[in-house]
Amino acid sequence: MVDVTVSLGANKYGKAENRVVRIVRDTPRHEIIDLNVTSQLRGEQLLDSYLTGNNALVVATDTQKNTIFAFAKEYGVPSVEEFLLRLGDHFVGSFEWIEGGLWQAEQYDWERIVVDGAPHDHSFVRKGQGTRLAAVQKVDGATHVTGGVKDLVVLKSTGSEFSGFPRDRYTTLVETDDRVMATSVTGRWRFLPEAVEAGIDYNGLYAEVTAVLLATFASVHSLALQQTLFEMGKAAIEARPEIAEVRFAMPNKHHFVYDLSPFGLENPNEVFHADDRPYGLIEGTVVRDGAAPAPDAWLDLPTFV
Amino acid sequence: MVDVTVSLGANKYGKAENRVVRIVRDTPRHEIIDLNVTSQLRGEQLLDSYLTGNNALVVATDTQKNTIFAFAKEYGVPSVEEFLLRLGDHFVGSFEWIEGGLWQAEQYDWERIVVDGAPHDHSFVRKGQGTRLAAVQKVDGATHVTGGVKDLVVLKSTGSEFSGFPRDRYTTLVETDDRVMATSVTGRWRFLPEAVEAGIDYNGLYAEVTAVLLATFASVHSLALQQTLFEMGKAAIEARPEIAEVRFAMPNKHHFVYDLSPFGLENPNEVFHADDRPYGLIEGTVVRDGAAPAPDAWLDLPTFV
Amino acid sequence: MVDVTVSLGANKYGKAENRVVRIVRDTPRHEIIDLNVTSQLRGEQLLDSYLTGNNALVVATDTQKNTIFAFAKEYGVPSVEEFLLRLGDHFVGSFEWIEGGLWQAEQYDWERIVVDGAPHDHSFVRKGQGTRLAAVQKVDGATHVTGGVKDLVVLKSTGSEFSGFPRDRYTTLVETDDRVMATSVTGRWRFLPEAVEAGIDYNGLYAEVTAVLLATFASVHSLALQQTLFEMGKAAIEARPEIAEVRFAMPNKHHFVYDLSPFGLENPNEVFHADDRPYGLIEGTVVRDGAAPAPDAWLDLPTFV
Amino acid sequence: MVDVTVSLGANKYGKAENRVVRIVRDTPRHEIIDLNVTSQLRGEQLLDSYLTGNNALVVATDTQKNTIFAFAKEYGVPSVEEFLLRLGDHFVGSFEWIEGGLWQAEQYDWERIVVDGAPHDHSFVRKGQGTRLAAVQKVDGATHVTGGVKDLVVLKSTGSEFSGFPRDRYTTLVETDDRVMATSVTGRWRFLPEAVEAGIDYNGLYAEVTAVLLATFASVHSLALQQTLFEMGKAAIEARPEIAEVRFAMPNKHHFVYDLSPFGLENPNEVFHADDRPYGLIEGTVVRDGAAPAPDAWLDLPTFV
Repeated sequence: MVDVTVSLGANKYGKAENRVVRIVRDTPRHEIIDLNVTSQLRGEQLLDSYLTGNNALVVATDTQKNTIFAFAKEYGVPSVEEFLLRLGDHFVGSFEWIEGGLWQAEQYDWERIVVDGAPHDHSFVRKGQGTRLAAVQKVDGATHVTGGVKDLVVLKSTGSEFSGFPRDRYTTLVETDDRVMATSVTGRWRFLPEAVEAGIDYNGLYAEVTAVLLATFASVHSLALQQTLFEMGKAAIEARPEIAEVRFAMPNKHHFVYDLSPFGLENPNEVFHADDRPYGLIEGTVVRDGAAPAPDAWLDLPTFV
Repeated sequence: MVDVTVSLGANKYGKAENRVVRIVRDTPRHEIIDLNVTSQLRGEQLLDSYLTGNNALVVATDTQKNTIFAFAKEYGVPSVEEFLLRLGDHFVGSFEWIEGGLWQAEQYDWERIVVDGAPHDHSFVRKGQGTRLAAVQKVDGATHVTGGVKDLVVLKSTGSEFSGFPRDRYTTLVETDDRVMATSVTGRWRFLPEAVEAGIDYNGLYAEVTAVLLATFASVHSLALQQTLFEMGKAAIEARPEIAEVRFAMPNKHHFVYDLSPFGLENPNEVFHADDRPYGLIEGTVVRDGAAPAPDAWLDLPTFV
Repeated sequence: MVDVTVSLGANKYGKAENRVVRIVRDTPRHEIIDLNVTSQLRGEQLLDSYLTGNNALVVATDTQKNTIFAFAKEYGVPSVEEFLLRLGDHFVGSFEWIEGGLWQAEQYDWERIVVDGAPHDHSFVRKGQGTRLAAVQKVDGATHVTGGVKDLVVLKSTGSEFSGFPRDRYTTLVETDDRVMATSVTGRWRFLPEAVEAGIDYNGLYAEVTAVLLATFASVHSLALQQTLFEMGKAAIEARPEIAEVRFAMPNKHHFVYDLSPFGLENPNEVFHADDRPYGLIEGTVVRDGAAPAPDAWLDLPTFV
Repeated sequence: MVDVTVSLGANKYGKAENRVVRIVRDTPRHEIIDLNVTSQLRGEQLLDSYLTGNNALVVATDTQKNTIFAFAKEYGVPSVEEFLLRLGDHFVGSFEWIEGGLWQAEQYDWERIVVDGAPHDHSFVRKGQGTRLAAVQKVDGATHVTGGVKDLVVLKSTGSEFSGFPRDRYTTLVETDDRVMATSVTGRWRFLPEAVEAGIDYNGLYAEVTAVLLATFASVHSLALQQTLFEMGKAAIEARPEIAEVRFAMPNKHHFVYDLSPFGLENPNEVFHADDRPYGLIEGTVVRDGAAPAPDAWLDLPTFV
């Protein structure tokens, strides 16, 4: 054909969305850990698999899957972050040509079903409020750990304004000092490397941070979703010294006051239409002053959309 | 063309998925009611709109939408069932040629966000556990009301068996006396007409019935999902005299024991793969003895899949 | 507890969404048939499985799955309707206590990839336009067969009006003699029993009927979506003598003229916002005069939403 | 609380998923352009909106939406890439404090409906095969343009092997010299800045590149999905001198040979189960030798998952 030469750039490969459910049944009071795990590997020497189809160094995606399930038995899942850390250490430690990778998970919370006022030993109902996120990234010899949450849908029915914005030819939006504000929070927090090294109570931290995010959303009188976002990140960092930074993606899920005036009715912020699309989309990062930046930690992570 | 003549059979039309959010703000402690409402009308005289495009009797779907939003202001939403009843009465009562219809809704529950230990006045987080269902059907002069729930995802990690089934050439399934059983409950309960007439505490009933369904799922030692389904319906009918019958669709969401033997590991029901498809699908109706049957109540309702 | 007795009403059970892909590779020019098959059984004697968990008559859902895959090899898939007919005959014929059931499928079309102007022998790209539907219902000794299509998204940019509708207090809609009309067609056609008996070229019929539906949507000057729906059903019945009736569910996917007047721009039906929700929802059945009605054929089929 | 200080890191904001449909009706033969457009802005001076809720510089997301719809009228949509370029130029050019942003779109193709053998003037059916992607990124004074495609689902029923991979304790996968290989291609190609400057026939290029991707997938005898991915990127770059690099994310959509041996049946790659999860996930970039790297072009773009 033509005289064109090409090279391989950034790449990784692995097995995505392994739905591991681990039951801890050492006592009659069972525990359930419900994960969706993705493992992907990187390495310069994997070049040949792309160029010639030589798979001599390709740790099969099927092998990655088997390892995930085997580790759920061999080492258990003390927390999803520790589970991913162990997976990452295994792949980088066991195959010298695997230089790094990205291990991600979603975790679905379950609650015990209540029977006659008592939580049941082995029957559960899925909580459905928020999905826990975790990721371990290994790049250039460094290990980065992030926790997070998504699908945490919140709304405040007052205590939100939006005004003072610039107006141009295409501006029609009316200023408001009272609106419904709703969003579905996606947030990821990066842990300080020294905190990871020292060990973290990841499960306790997740519970505390999500509670702080909710309480801050509720408490802040909002002049803009941007401001609420920043206060939420600030509160999380203040609450837990292990957190270096927090990234958020927050859709502004519009609730429009329905015009009832043609029917002779007033509508003082009582009846709304919840719109699907378009939606505002506010994204921002809140960084602890003095924390060393770590852009590699966020490589290929789908926080911002 | 050819000598073929055709007629119009069953039909209805309306506006689907109106996302009404009603804020009750009479006091500083707001309430939120979050609905997805569908209104559809039926009537023999609507024939002309299909045959000739004569819209003289077609209550516009846009008008149905406006009415839904206006009623949320004019009459409020004491319960979703009562809201749908009022809509149905309005359309059948206001337009003589509208003989009946189907009014359906989903309701999404919200919880108050907790700040400093106290539930907040006007900030909420979506519950995410189960979606409430309601429908009002008007056919041939009768009015039928059903309540329900969907997406109530439950799992028991033991206390479930499956054995004694027949074996043919295509049977490979191994009998088990201990398995994970998980399902996503979709259930609809039809109210006795006399109870509707007398008035029902629909909100209280919904809370009680969903609690009873969960507790029964938890308590029954299951020999088959069919048996669990029947016991759940029986318990709901026993709990509330207003209920004539309960219909369920329950996927058997398979959790397969992962084979760890190639890795020299035992797996005594500890590590599972949660499969997506295929899934078992068990559907059944539990009927109160003596309740008059009402097949019309279920017309076009998507309970069974 | 209380003195309440209950009984089992309508029910069925089986395995849903078996994703069978059948490759015909008798010659180097392969064929691909891509199905999503659901099998469910009914029988009065299955009562015991619900009441006592006695599974002695429960043909396991796993067995139903195995049978589906085995039949794809043993008998092939001449058409999806014939495949489902064979499954139904097998279950009712092999287990005397199985009185009937419902066998459903979706079929995804693939096209050959073109290489150097020629269709490739064994490489395919999924078509993505419309999903074929089929169902076989066995009730009370009768067998009903339906074909269909869903997700056939069509739009006409002119040639659609809506006016002449009644106005009440809640009516604000403006009449229009030129609008965009768009819908996603879901249609199911029931075959005459005598045509099923005589044998039908189901694949050829599907191609012809979908082409007729599209051409009719395009050609009819529409005064209402109801009218278009009726004309489409009429055309299908006129085109193929095997069809007894056609049921449609058609969302009116609203395309709203965007108001550009604040920016000093006219918008003569050129720029639209495609809304998600709410949407109109028009449903109707067109019946061949003289065809015997068969309400059982539609039992539990999700045509109307 | 504690003595913690924080700062704002990376951020952007805007309006997402504006569903613009543009009808070109200058002649009776209409054209349809169907887009889903997201606009987001960046600027250091937007800091205040996050820190204090001062919105004096916040070009409202509603204004961004209005601009998108107005531009669809004022300037039309010669190609989606040119449309996004114009939007980006507008926002950066009109508001001195807006330093950059990201403008993304999906485009849905429509085909004319055929009536009596002729393509109709104003009636269309959505194609459904692949979704076109485009993005314009403005960072640090530079403008980057990418095109792409997603949801292009392909399968080859033979001509695919996978063997020669390393085996460890967790490896159970059997080597194969004949398997079904299927993927859903997501690809994005970055245009050389000098080509953007000179002007590109973006629509013609999209058609050619997608055809080349399909033909290459079909033609390459595959030793691994990695190899196929690389050959597809290479072919795209060879085909069009405007392309600097191509990024792919390709799930390996597993089709497992169903074990029919318990039923006494052979299965020589004829009957498969199409699994949902987990799936392989292969990601890679193919770069034209000599093209200047432009990591900023990919900022926040969701190519790799």
